[in-house]
Amino acid sequence: MWYHGPMEALVLEQKDRLRIRDIEIAETLGPNDVRIALRSVGVCGSDVHYFTHGGIGPFVVREPMILGHEASGVVVETGTDVKTLKPGDRVCMEPGVPNPHGRATRLGIYNLDPDVSFWATPPVHGVTRPTVVHPESFTFKLPDNVSFAAGAMVEPLAVGMHAATKAGIAPGDVAAVIGAGTIGLVTIMAALAGGCSRVVAIDIKDPKLKIAAGLGAVTTVNSGRTDPATVVHELTDGWGVDIVFEASGAPDALNAALPLIRPGGTLVAIGMPVEPVSFDVVGAQAREVRMETIFRYAHVYPRALALMGAGAIDLDPLVTDRYSFDKSVDAYEYAVSPRPESIKVQIEMPG
Amino acid sequence: MWYHGPMEALVLEQKDRLRIRDIEIAETLGPNDVRIALRSVGVCGSDVHYFTHGGIGPFVVREPMILGHEASGVVVETGTDVKTLKPGDRVCMEPGVPNPHGRATRLGIYNLDPDVSFWATPPVHGVTRPTVVHPESFTFKLPDNVSFAAGAMVEPLAVGMHAATKAGIAPGDVAAVIGAGTIGLVTIMAALAGGCSRVVAIDIKDPKLKIAAGLGAVTTVNSGRTDPATVVHELTDGWGVDIVFEASGAPDALNAALPLIRPGGTLVAIGMPVEPVSFDVVGAQAREVRMETIFRYAHVYPRALALMGAGAIDLDPLVTDRYSFDKSVDAYEYAVSPRPESIKVQIEMPG
Amino acid sequence: MWYHGPMEALVLEQKDRLRIRDIEIAETLGPNDVRIALRSVGVCGSDVHYFTHGGIGPFVVREPMILGHEASGVVVETGTDVKTLKPGDRVCMEPGVPNPHGRATRLGIYNLDPDVSFWATPPVHGVTRPTVVHPESFTFKLPDNVSFAAGAMVEPLAVGMHAATKAGIAPGDVAAVIGAGTIGLVTIMAALAGGCSRVVAIDIKDPKLKIAAGLGAVTTVNSGRTDPATVVHELTDGWGVDIVFEASGAPDALNAALPLIRPGGTLVAIGMPVEPVSFDVVGAQAREVRMETIFRYAHVYPRALALMGAGAIDLDPLVTDRYSFDKSVDAYEYAVSPRPESIKVQIEMPG
Amino acid sequence: MWYHGPMEALVLEQKDRLRIRDIEIAETLGPNDVRIALRSVGVCGSDVHYFTHGGIGPFVVREPMILGHEASGVVVETGTDVKTLKPGDRVCMEPGVPNPHGRATRLGIYNLDPDVSFWATPPVHGVTRPTVVHPESFTFKLPDNVSFAAGAMVEPLAVGMHAATKAGIAPGDVAAVIGAGTIGLVTIMAALAGGCSRVVAIDIKDPKLKIAAGLGAVTTVNSGRTDPATVVHELTDGWGVDIVFEASGAPDALNAALPLIRPGGTLVAIGMPVEPVSFDVVGAQAREVRMETIFRYAHVYPRALALMGAGAIDLDPLVTDRYSFDKSVDAYEYAVSPRPESIKVQIEMPG
Repeated sequence: MWYHGPMEALVLEQKDRLRIRDIEIAETLGPNDVRIALRSVGVCGSDVHYFTHGGIGPFVVREPMILGHEASGVVVETGTDVKTLKPGDRVCMEPGVPNPHGRATRLGIYNLDPDVSFWATPPVHGVTRPTVVHPESFTFKLPDNVSFAAGAMVEPLAVGMHAATKAGIAPGDVAAVIGAGTIGLVTIMAALAGGCSRVVAIDIKDPKLKIAAGLGAVTTVNSGRTDPATVVHELTDGWGVDIVFEASGAPDALNAALPLIRPGGTLVAIGMPVEPVSFDVVGAQAREVRMETIFRYAHVYPRALALMGAGAIDLDPLVTDRYSFDKSVDAYEYAVSPRPESIKVQIEMPG
Repeated sequence: MWYHGPMEALVLEQKDRLRIRDIEIAETLGPNDVRIALRSVGVCGSDVHYFTHGGIGPFVVREPMILGHEASGVVVETGTDVKTLKPGDRVCMEPGVPNPHGRATRLGIYNLDPDVSFWATPPVHGVTRPTVVHPESFTFKLPDNVSFAAGAMVEPLAVGMHAATKAGIAPGDVAAVIGAGTIGLVTIMAALAGGCSRVVAIDIKDPKLKIAAGLGAVTTVNSGRTDPATVVHELTDGWGVDIVFEASGAPDALNAALPLIRPGGTLVAIGMPVEPVSFDVVGAQAREVRMETIFRYAHVYPRALALMGAGAIDLDPLVTDRYSFDKSVDAYEYAVSPRPESIKVQIEMPG
Repeated sequence: MWYHGPMEALVLEQKDRLRIRDIEIAETLGPNDVRIALRSVGVCGSDVHYFTHGGIGPFVVREPMILGHEASGVVVETGTDVKTLKPGDRVCMEPGVPNPHGRATRLGIYNLDPDVSFWATPPVHGVTRPTVVHPESFTFKLPDNVSFAAGAMVEPLAVGMHAATKAGIAPGDVAAVIGAGTIGLVTIMAALAGGCSRVVAIDIKDPKLKIAAGLGAVTTVNSGRTDPATVVHELTDGWGVDIVFEASGAPDALNAALPLIRPGGTLVAIGMPVEPVSFDVVGAQAREVRMETIFRYAHVYPRALALMGAGAIDLDPLVTDRYSFDKSVDAYEYAVSPRPESIKVQIEMPG
Repeated sequence: MWYHGPMEALVLEQKDRLRIRDIEIAETLGPNDVRIALRSVGVCGSDVHYFTHGGIGPFVVREPMILGHEASGVVVETGTDVKTLKPGDRVCMEPGVPNPHGRATRLGIYNLDPDVSFWATPPVHGVTRPTVVHPESFTFKLPDNVSFAAGAMVEPLAVGMHAATKAGIAPGDVAAVIGAGTIGLVTIMAALAGGCSRVVAIDIKDPKLKIAAGLGAVTTVNSGRTDPATVVHELTDGWGVDIVFEASGAPDALNAALPLIRPGGTLVAIGMPVEPVSFDVVGAQAREVRMETIFRYAHVYPRALALMGAGAIDLDPLVTDRYSFDKSVDAYEYAVSPRPESIKVQIEMPG
């Protein structure tokens, strides 16, 4: 039940100093926990930011920390009270575990628990390592048709799924997504699988739009060349889209979103601008826009996996760059300035 | 602007007496109206019931009445204030037009307006006839890839779309649909297009289930042979489905639905049982089931057409039997006792 | 931190055999727990039913069990991690503690957790006894103006609060409440405090209606003498009430509720009929009634206490009969057939 | 049925030129209309702004225009199809009448209809005049206990009611209201009547806060002297309020609101800042704040009047300054720079 000893992991010693080395890890397998052998671990923008800057806002890397929080693996051991999982099960995991006694947790909005323990957020270790102990209730079986690579992609997809869920899509709604990076793309997927009839994808980079165009009923707009409002106006007979998902974090994106939205429509703020942005309150009021804001996700892993199992969402094409564990540092160096065609860099753990 | 004179139509003289004959129709084309040449007109269960019984509940056929309310056509004339339509536009129409001054209409729940004028509901004529005048705001352009046959099917689809909308599907929800007749089938389509990852289709007739199985991520259960609760239990690890759509109207269907529903799940009552049914209140309370009830539809035509335009819903396969206008009486006689493989009988108007 | 030994409690030995005696209780004070000295304990219909019948449905009293689950008290000891409470705090407690690892609990619908441990539900002891250990997160401070008697009444009020919350009252809605027993009365209070402009209280017993009439903007109807539909019709210009709360459990109450409800209105099923009831599905559909069902409550204690602290709800008048602990058996014998003016019987613990 | 001729009204000739004079008015009484003799007409900030600036944004006074849109009166004539009103009925009126054929109107969000005809918004005349013709469905009977003065105050109250409705108050919620001008005060009233247990009123002017303090369970904070976050923190044990209503329009108000809101709480933007404001997206995301924006109101008059009829809201104390019609110009001149104790200036029409 106890593991106490060194394991070989990808450790960020401090800003710019990343290496594979042995690190001491003490983990207890509680009655409601499982131990998982990692298989695929994605490289997220936040991982890269810790690597290049040594911190994100108030979260500063003061002690050596294992990176990686987008992960899939195989169950190798189960606690005495575990009922839904058994050794050999292929799984993916939610990286954040809330305090079960917290007030937000009790309300069901556990993503907002201030005491959440989240992988690869200082001082909590990530999972670019051989094994990890995790609660059963935040560990989810992969459908047979879902690869380990896709399983590790559920974490970013979960952000798009959470956005699509909070948007309250009515079947057949038309949406726009601003930004076609990883989060924008998974939001497009979630919006289409979640009931939208069409998504207008807006970005300034053609390679990203090209990928977006392949995801289904998607109309692409390069906003560097074409005014999205014109495209939306034509597509919707001047009415506007039901929902705009803002996934770019650009400072002018919220105001640019407003003229696209129909009366009584919804704006979902997913992107995280570094500074406060300008917001045209009167412009929002004129159409009584409702704005939802998104922080990570809650309760969406089972529903994301159900859509993947049914074939409604296929994440494999988004995994564009794979590195073996021993090349992890190369993976991160590549992820600092990837080719424009790259979406997701992943590390494959030795199985 | 005025039409006053005879037109050749399918007239129900009284119970069991149906024929094609000239009938006097006086219609004004108001400033917000369009005149439409009909192309496809479906035969609905309610039409057949008027034919075989002469009435439905309080609605009794006392004067000769044209049948048919599922319809598509081509705009041939437009009122002076019409902006969104022009002659030549291929369209389908909502058959019910509410009183714009009514309280329910003002609230946006125009389907509940007691003063609604609904085609082929006594004393209002239906549209198995050459032309009809209809308000612009209840007439909708067909996407290019949508046939007239599919356009006339939007009316029954609208019931499923309305049910899927009121269910409040969260992306990836799992649903069950009880009853795989026309309404059950379009509800399955709406549920899948509207965000469900999987639908369990339940019926006692294998030909219907075979059609259901072809609609996508559908698990079929013949409840005459297999307990749906067992199938749902296995599919959902004992948790239950998020939503049950009751589309059979069978007297025991609501109670049969309850054990399929997860804690906090939803039951949507679409089917219309002839008599009050038994309802296990405590069984519903034990999982805090929310029950939505459905009466026709509101606001769903544009969203149904958007999903059809995007290819997410294809209604053509549901039109199994087509008759030319001059064979309309044959169509109705067939529809009284169709083959089990039949879904929708339609009449094609001379174009 | 441990208590292991006998305490003097009100013990139901078996059906009809109730007495005060010493009973062995072993309780650990965990880090997130508090120990509470009980002050007021209400006698609930379920307690009385265990006394007179020895069980409720599947819950059968097989071992001696302490009765009572509506309770207030004073904190006397706190676990090491407790932050919001300290010894001396006047408190009331939610009697049901869910499994924190359960799926329903994680979703925030902890009242639906099948593993919930609920006081005075076999085999879990109730709290008509000197002290009890309880989790901090299900223990709530009483505002200064709330008595211990009122604090113990928060438990039944919570049912009405939960119903009022799930109803989704829009400010100024008009409601009707069927049944003016304890649950009906607290539902009236919750509905008025929760935004309703007026409540129509319906019962067949004048003493209950007299109490209801004193709760504020209440119109009373003795349905044995007057048709509630007539009263509602006049009060609402024929439109109907926005919400009906069914709090009687009478077999014909759901169907009687339907004609009272406006198009698009809501029916909340609180009462628990012993057998399945008749339900007029088509009658519900004709106005697209939404039905919410209620099982206990979740998340409402803090909001109930806030309304009580602000003076918007005053529960003291509902406590009509008080007995000292040594007269507990008398209290129960009285509660088996109380005067019609009685609402709540409480037992006062020695302080 | 026709009125065509001069009537004596309060006419804004152009910026700064306001006088009482005869003006030609041609009005038809349609079958669904009523003619109303005006009794009380409020002076709104927008009226004053037209007076002092000659326009508001795109709405410029190019022709002489009668001012005033907050009004009550007595029905003097009814159209042939009017059913709910009769001569002699005391009423108040919604000043905006939407196009019944518009898409927003059909959805029930008629306040967002771009074709709305709104009193005293160029080029539509207001109602500081003897009579006006208005649709029955936007004219509402006053309860007996509601004065004409209070009836004319329903218009500003409607804004607060609409905000309270869109907030989705759960019974017992705690709210804060930023700004204690007329709109802030009616929002406090609507929030308390609509289910809030307590409102924190925030302003920098003590006379306004003094009035707020008299409205019920209100905690006042002069934000010029005290940090509202500290007050909210103490009041809510560090959790935050469920809802903040922003009713000041101050440029820093949205960002100031964020730290007051609990995880998963709501921000309602009522105030209309002249310029786009700064918005801390990440601060909103950290607690997943939902932001509703408000444009006028829809469907709230009947519910506002129901609360007033029940005594839950009393608007008379907010009418601080009354002028007879012949002193209308004085009223406007006073309203340009009123005493700080003034809330609402009204003009009383000769009855």
